[in-house]
Amino acid sequence: MNYEMGWLNYHRGKTEELPNYMGQLYYTEEDTVLLSAIEELKLAAKGMFGCELAVSKDNTVTGDKGIFLKVNKGAGISEEGYRITAKDSFVLIEGSTSRGVLYGTYAFLRRLHKNPDLTGYREEKSPDNPLRMLNHWDNMDGSIERGYSGESFFFQDNEILINSRTKDYARLAASVGINGVVINNVNVKGAATWLITDRYFDKLKSLQDIFKSYGIKLYLSLNFAAPMELGELHTADPLSEEVKAWWQDRIQKVYDSLPDLGGFLIKADSEGRPGPFTYKRTHSEGANMLAAAVRPYGGLIIWRCFVYNCMQDWRDKKTDRARAGYDNFKPLDGSFSENVILQIKNGPMDFQVREPVNSLFGAMEQTNQMLEVQIAQEYTGQQRHVCYLIPAFKEILEYHTGYGEKDTVGEIIGGTASGSRNCGITTVVNTGNDSNWTGHDLAAANFYGFGRLAFDRNLSAEEIGEEWIRATFGGEKKVVDTILEILMMSWPAYEKYTSPLGIGWMVNPNHHFGPNVDGYEYDRWGTYHRADRFGLGVDRSSKGTGYATTYSESNALLYETAESCPEELLLFFHYIEYNYCLKSGKTLIQHIYDTHFEGAKEAEQMAAMWEQLTGYVPEEIHKRVMERLEFQKNHALEWRDVICSYFYRKSGIPDIMKREIY
Amino acid sequence: MNYEMGWLNYHRGKTEELPNYMGQLYYTEEDTVLLSAIEELKLAAKGMFGCELAVSKDNTVTGDKGIFLKVNKGAGISEEGYRITAKDSFVLIEGSTSRGVLYGTYAFLRRLHKNPDLTGYREEKSPDNPLRMLNHWDNMDGSIERGYSGESFFFQDNEILINSRTKDYARLAASVGINGVVINNVNVKGAATWLITDRYFDKLKSLQDIFKSYGIKLYLSLNFAAPMELGELHTADPLSEEVKAWWQDRIQKVYDSLPDLGGFLIKADSEGRPGPFTYKRTHSEGANMLAAAVRPYGGLIIWRCFVYNCMQDWRDKKTDRARAGYDNFKPLDGSFSENVILQIKNGPMDFQVREPVNSLFGAMEQTNQMLEVQIAQEYTGQQRHVCYLIPAFKEILEYHTGYGEKDTVGEIIGGTASGSRNCGITTVVNTGNDSNWTGHDLAAANFYGFGRLAFDRNLSAEEIGEEWIRATFGGEKKVVDTILEILMMSWPAYEKYTSPLGIGWMVNPNHHFGPNVDGYEYDRWGTYHRADRFGLGVDRSSKGTGYATTYSESNALLYETAESCPEELLLFFHYIEYNYCLKSGKTLIQHIYDTHFEGAKEAEQMAAMWEQLTGYVPEEIHKRVMERLEFQKNHALEWRDVICSYFYRKSGIPDIMKREIY
Repeated sequence: MNYEMGWLNYHRGKTEELPNYMGQLYYTEEDTVLLSAIEELKLAAKGMFGCELAVSKDNTVTGDKGIFLKVNKGAGISEEGYRITAKDSFVLIEGSTSRGVLYGTYAFLRRLHKNPDLTGYREEKSPDNPLRMLNHWDNMDGSIERGYSGESFFFQDNEILINSRTKDYARLAASVGINGVVINNVNVKGAATWLITDRYFDKLKSLQDIFKSYGIKLYLSLNFAAPMELGELHTADPLSEEVKAWWQDRIQKVYDSLPDLGGFLIKADSEGRPGPFTYKRTHSEGANMLAAAVRPYGGLIIWRCFVYNCMQDWRDKKTDRARAGYDNFKPLDGSFSENVILQIKNGPMDFQVREPVNSLFGAMEQTNQMLEVQIAQEYTGQQRHVCYLIPAFKEILEYHTGYGEKDTVGEIIGGTASGSRNCGITTVVNTGNDSNWTGHDLAAANFYGFGRLAFDRNLSAEEIGEEWIRATFGGEKKVVDTILEILMMSWPAYEKYTSPLGIGWMVNPNHHFGPNVDGYEYDRWGTYHRADRFGLGVDRSSKGTGYATTYSESNALLYETAESCPEELLLFFHYIEYNYCLKSGKTLIQHIYDTHFEGAKEAEQMAAMWEQLTGYVPEEIHKRVMERLEFQKNHALEWRDVICSYFYRKSGIPDIMKREIY
Repeated sequence: MNYEMGWLNYHRGKTEELPNYMGQLYYTEEDTVLLSAIEELKLAAKGMFGCELAVSKDNTVTGDKGIFLKVNKGAGISEEGYRITAKDSFVLIEGSTSRGVLYGTYAFLRRLHKNPDLTGYREEKSPDNPLRMLNHWDNMDGSIERGYSGESFFFQDNEILINSRTKDYARLAASVGINGVVINNVNVKGAATWLITDRYFDKLKSLQDIFKSYGIKLYLSLNFAAPMELGELHTADPLSEEVKAWWQDRIQKVYDSLPDLGGFLIKADSEGRPGPFTYKRTHSEGANMLAAAVRPYGGLIIWRCFVYNCMQDWRDKKTDRARAGYDNFKPLDGSFSENVILQIKNGPMDFQVREPVNSLFGAMEQTNQMLEVQIAQEYTGQQRHVCYLIPAFKEILEYHTGYGEKDTVGEIIGGTASGSRNCGITTVVNTGNDSNWTGHDLAAANFYGFGRLAFDRNLSAEEIGEEWIRATFGGEKKVVDTILEILMMSWPAYEKYTSPLGIGWMVNPNHHFGPNVDGYEYDRWGTYHRADRFGLGVDRSSKGTGYATTYSESNALLYETAESCPEELLLFFHYIEYNYCLKSGKTLIQHIYDTHFEGAKEAEQMAAMWEQLTGYVPEEIHKRVMERLEFQKNHALEWRDVICSYFYRKSGIPDIMKREIY
């Protein structure tokens, strides 16, 4: 199995001398997680300094020379937090649990990439989110829904794979603080329905144990209709006594075999998946029934809110998919069990390059909430375009929902607002069995960055990017500066050359790659731009579909009028004429032309910048990335020309810059 | 194997008495084709009259009572012609070959469906086209490119199938006068390249012999790169001596095993297929090399003219796919060998619901030409919509090319103009292994009609339709009238509710089902409507791409201006503003609105008319057709609303009828 380890490659620095603290490693107890930390430190010391660490168990080290991994329950550190204190020749990494020590170890290694001189170094951090999860959309046949990095490394031919990648994946995830992984696609069909049966328990147990040694809990996606599809009942009605009994029995069997299982993720009544609606039950009735079954084992039910009518008639201008999540779930606030978490996509649509924050955040004050983002880039270049999404996630986390004092999304999902521990953040992940795990080498920054941001939401996108570059490619200034600039310009560029001002879509049905302006315009998915010869956009104000009114009072007011609406969301909330004057003084149509030419230009610049790194990054990686950036450059031109031509043909208004539009 | 026999089902008439001539059948000689005719007559007599025919060989019958199948070389009948003369109790079916007698037999049976009273009946006919062929786009894995009636009945898992369907297919084809069948897809890949090797000779021989007993010649599609793909040479250059020698040897081996093979069909330098262009050779150099190899065996090389740039940039408004066939082939006139036939699609694009006749017809006076149409309905409803194409084919055959005296397409491809025998008509066929062969039961009228029209181009679409209905469903007036009305209104209705005035396309890429107005607008296939807020259409006059100038002088003049251009082709040849006034007095945009509402209404009417036939046609067939007509009705509404909305949004001009447009 031939693959690389990205930011865990522990390459040798050019001029590093062996620091005084490198040589001896002490630890306090035999614990699989602590052993993982030890192994990681040994690998790093060997890779970065050519140093073979001597390891000894010793609970009484007081501080002289070496590194000391110390589980210390009495040190006032939170469950997953860590504290690092360093003197010239001695480094103490403490946690109240071995998991905390593991996170401290990775933090220490990050610091080494930045500067091995630890003079005055002290770091203490508790994770901002109780749950920091990855959602794999891996199917058991080995395919990955919306996967752009090869096949699954968890499944093949309806069997579970366990090999060296399994542990190395756990290392990658743990190194950025991930503590939960859902291994199978939320669309649970066929063999995946059988994951909760003894057909798969042995392999799952191995997987659970590997994960556990890196502080990660295994989760499974569940088929709500399992009682029927496993052939045992004729109903899946959550209020049926036999269904309840069936689940209690089934869940007990699962936990008998997999005692450390974190719980289950469920996509119900969504895009054809079964759910409580089939039986005229509410989502809380559905979720609570399962929550009762997992409660004895400390399990969680994570319930997705992606529920909408995917058979809409495009002629129907009253129904609004954006409203669906709010309309379906808001009335249920307070009715969910304590171990149910609603998993809410960042926006009301579906991972577009720009969406408003979902109005459900903060609106359900009596309900556990978890944020779902997507680094798989389904709508943001599919890992063929570089699109560093951490700046976008920062904006989401910092968004003020307008509910209460601690009202940012970050505070809500982190539990700061409510005090809950059943909350957090998850992402649809971007890995596969490609040799570099993420297809596009630069897409690894999204995996890395997601985890880091989930752990510490106050980190800036630049800080995270720089950490990742240093660990992956080394600390040479030209390398760090160039790649960081590419990362930081990539999301804005992608937004510029694709769909304008929050309207989204403009991609081909099914595979979701663009450009195709009318791709979803006359379709059943509720995703329309409503462009005509006068303008475009969807009126979601109180005079339109009313989606704007589902926000807190202050935000609802903001979105209600075109004048007050944040301009990057203008077309999401309003139908705007082409000659409308934006705050920049430009008309809407001129803004569309200008941003598209700018964005395409920036794509060209990114390719040119990467070319300058020839000889500075490993040749094979340079070539791989170069090919993708060249593709992106050309594809950005295609986007630019299609969008500009489409709107020129519709508006008839020429570009004042007289650039060629077709 | 459970399937039906359509117009060869020989159902019992309600009140038929046994005619005097039914009872005894005489024939002149043991010949497989004649035996096929005898078998068909026996089946028909049994089915229609419950009569077991007595059969005897007797060359000396003079005419008393019975039916006499007579091969009579001295009767002055053409090679495939027949003559039927009937008295009260005696019917003489003559041909100079047994094939002529077979065609006469089927003609006689058609007459029986119309009226078993033969008083004064006499019929004599020679086929109008020397070659009357079917092109199967069947792949050896069993799939069918653009197949909408199930899987292939010729191939499965890279093997050739021979079973009862093989012969029954030959019966269906022969019954309408087909004399040549290409069994494999023109896109020859993988196993199909090996059809010219001994891997498949045994099965092909069986197929050839079954076909032969119905007067049909077997043809194969050929891979121009076979010398390389079969792993024997490093080039396929048609002027290379080793390539010539390779083909001569290969073709000799083919004919050693398949002495009755008609020849080969080649798609070269088209949509990614290899061809002479790879070696900077002309198409005549490519075709003639193969023609030389097959000449000793009387074989034909049928060379498709579907050669165009399928990597066009949509931004490029000068390149015109419509011109490609003419530009590629016209300069080669006179350079093709006598046993090469150019197979030319009816229009310059690709089987759209309305296209001008291809300007190559008649333009190459020194070249054998064959017309290719498509009954598979790739762009005309894919056998989910009823669309009886015979009226369209009639228009094509009757089109005056403007070259010489006998200048209709029918006269050119029939050889009337040139005296050639290497010419004719072919269709991409619409059959598969569905129980009714054509998916949509009414699509069988296209198979039937194609053959009949190929045999006798003077038949009207109504006559052909009526023949087919009588044979398939019986002669009850309500049945005949209703189905005929549905057939005759179907093509005009489809044209009305889909793309307007010859512009074509407006379908989804790849699968070609619509509606999707911009589906191909920003793509690489050379298929654009160029709609903007002022109008739509492609200027192909001398001021535009110049395609209009590739016609004969008279036709070029006709197409040159919007005023003289036949209105059904207006948008094919001209960019027209929405407020342009048509001959009807309506504006273009109003015409678009009106035709789309009319067409959708007609689709509704067709469904309602069919519903009236409950109890008049077999229940299962009624149900199958009803389902498709209901689908068509709804899909026509979708077409109507998408097209009208698209152009309303672009033009901003309201419907004067104030119907709802979205």
